[in-house]
Amino acid sequence: MTVEGAPPGAAAELVGGHRVRRTSMAMADGRELLYFDDSPGYVDGTATRETRDTRDLPPVATTSTMRFDVLTGEWVALAAHRMDRTFKPPADLCPLCPTRPGRPAGEVPADDYDVVVFENRFPSYAGAGGPAATAPATHLDGEELWVTRPAVGRCEVICFTADHDASVASLPVSRVRTVVEAWADRTAALSALAGVGQVFPFENRGEEIGVTLQHPHGQIYAYPEPAPRLAQYLGRAAAHRAATGGNLLADVLAAERRAGTRVVLAGERWTAYVPAAARWPVEVHLAPHRDVPDLAALDGPERDELAVVYRELLRRLDRYFPEVETLPYIAGWHQAPVGAERDLGRLHLQAFSILRSPNKLKYLAGSESGAGAWVNDTTPERIAERLRAVAS
Amino acid sequence: MTVEGAPPGAAAELVGGHRVRRTSMAMADGRELLYFDDSPGYVDGTATRETRDTRDLPPVATTSTMRFDVLTGEWVALAAHRMDRTFKPPADLCPLCPTRPGRPAGEVPADDYDVVVFENRFPSYAGAGGPAATAPATHLDGEELWVTRPAVGRCEVICFTADHDASVASLPVSRVRTVVEAWADRTAALSALAGVGQVFPFENRGEEIGVTLQHPHGQIYAYPEPAPRLAQYLGRAAAHRAATGGNLLADVLAAERRAGTRVVLAGERWTAYVPAAARWPVEVHLAPHRDVPDLAALDGPERDELAVVYRELLRRLDRYFPEVETLPYIAGWHQAPVGAERDLGRLHLQAFSILRSPNKLKYLAGSESGAGAWVNDTTPERIAERLRAVAS
Repeated sequence: MTVEGAPPGAAAELVGGHRVRRTSMAMADGRELLYFDDSPGYVDGTATRETRDTRDLPPVATTSTMRFDVLTGEWVALAAHRMDRTFKPPADLCPLCPTRPGRPAGEVPADDYDVVVFENRFPSYAGAGGPAATAPATHLDGEELWVTRPAVGRCEVICFTADHDASVASLPVSRVRTVVEAWADRTAALSALAGVGQVFPFENRGEEIGVTLQHPHGQIYAYPEPAPRLAQYLGRAAAHRAATGGNLLADVLAAERRAGTRVVLAGERWTAYVPAAARWPVEVHLAPHRDVPDLAALDGPERDELAVVYRELLRRLDRYFPEVETLPYIAGWHQAPVGAERDLGRLHLQAFSILRSPNKLKYLAGSESGAGAWVNDTTPERIAERLRAVAS
Repeated sequence: MTVEGAPPGAAAELVGGHRVRRTSMAMADGRELLYFDDSPGYVDGTATRETRDTRDLPPVATTSTMRFDVLTGEWVALAAHRMDRTFKPPADLCPLCPTRPGRPAGEVPADDYDVVVFENRFPSYAGAGGPAATAPATHLDGEELWVTRPAVGRCEVICFTADHDASVASLPVSRVRTVVEAWADRTAALSALAGVGQVFPFENRGEEIGVTLQHPHGQIYAYPEPAPRLAQYLGRAAAHRAATGGNLLADVLAAERRAGTRVVLAGERWTAYVPAAARWPVEVHLAPHRDVPDLAALDGPERDELAVVYRELLRRLDRYFPEVETLPYIAGWHQAPVGAERDLGRLHLQAFSILRSPNKLKYLAGSESGAGAWVNDTTPERIAERLRAVAS
């Protein structure tokens, strides 16, 4: 559990023994920034933390709109202002590093931090909790077929560590535990904003998947409604419930634990398995044993174990190909929707890589990107075997 | 229209004045190869064509299976044998070039060709028309949730020209017209095979999207049922028909022609437009004015105009970014399904690029690949403006 940073020194003993102090501040352009600290000096208030952002920043552009794609039934966000976003800056200009003497101020005013979260300067979705959240949809060109509306939501960046050259897999478990705390906090906070239908914390890692900032960081997207993958799942889960009475993801987990052939890691409160129909050359899911809708609903022991097993999973990904030191990956938390059909959802992580061999990428070409038909060049059982073989 | 190559000299005058001779042969491992010739010597039978493949080839592996993904309702093909497929060979070992003295025999035994189609040696889907087409689905691990069956279908390669360094955009219109003829022929032939539910001709062009062979070529996938994008469309089209009585794609075309803001190219029989909810940084659709289910249903004048407008569209793609000589792109033909719901479908081309600026790719990272939520960094109207500005 997390305690607010103000007043200083108010840190409490937390569930599972992990103490985190949360300190909120406003950035120069009005965006919100939150420190999640676990270092003793910050937690007990004896260490100081810069909470002023003195940069001269123009207001954040939040001009995104969404259009409804009548051929697929999915909304597409149009965010033309993102074309100018920061692209692979040199390490000494990293905007995610702490602000230190002799280099320009970055996004984080403090000269050190443990875990920090702030609103993205180039958001794909913005305005949740504000007036845009209730803006009506309109028709483009006066045509019934084309519906458009503001891309309401919120996009946050989470820096996992102040160390530019680290990775989640290289952090101490206690720091990963703080990341879990920050994810849970943001899930609860963003879910409470008007206009939010899904909260999706994820990490993109590696230049191969287009990461433009090398500093270890993830993102938290709050979508205005269940995004396509979740919407697809909700349809499947509703049909499954109607047919069997069960929760689809809970039944999948139970079946994977029975079969065992694709189980990668079996904890007391979490199990990791390769899904039976894995579509990526490396893919693993991680699910809690208890039915919980989202990260905010995890209890202390579940959060404690998650820090251990999540780091272990990421370490195994880095060992997947002996020739590859750091595997490019995408790791995303699928959570229950906010609002309607929330009872159909169930928390799980989907982590996957597009590397199909040490020097070959799985590209999404005509069959996948055009027809939507996925072809995997390996089998889920082989992936699971490898992920078991590289255990710590 | 196409005439069979045997007996020689039987070529007829064809609709639109374009004459193509089709000659079928068996490759060394039993795969089928088809020459589609438009050069006078080949059409009238005075030029000879090698129709024997004397290589010593092992049988083609066709071990693909499909598994049903219960979380998405989509089938995923598992084709582990494809892990070993040919990967960026040097130009003098290109398996798609004609077989000429002094270099190893490639896939095409002839020392020259106009357009050639043959079955892929590393097929993701195989066995259409054979016993696998009726093989029953089974349960994996004895679990109701996991259904598996053979990945029935057929995968063909189409070489657009014998010239290794050419591109579709650089071919004479008459050769593009022959490509259209070959697509139409294969659409009809593959649709007639038991176990085929959709025929998808497409071209992947450019290393940036993972093309492993540089020779100008495309592919034709015959899927065992409507693949996810088509299935998604059919659901939308059925709802649209129930609500309005109209054909969704026909109504989209009509609305785009009325609005005009996203129309890129207006022919007598074809119109190209950027879809109102384009998800790719460069995307354009091309649709016939007449309701037709697939390429095989196009009449002569439609095929003639298609050769002109398709080449023109590809030329404009290559001019899209002045700094980029050849744009990486995916161009795929969405056709009506074979069998059920065929009347809901309507032929259209979707061409798109993942290049969002001359040196930046649009990556499908956490939001797109994880949550399925697409963010486009430009607007459809800007894409259309650019595609009009670079007209020939």
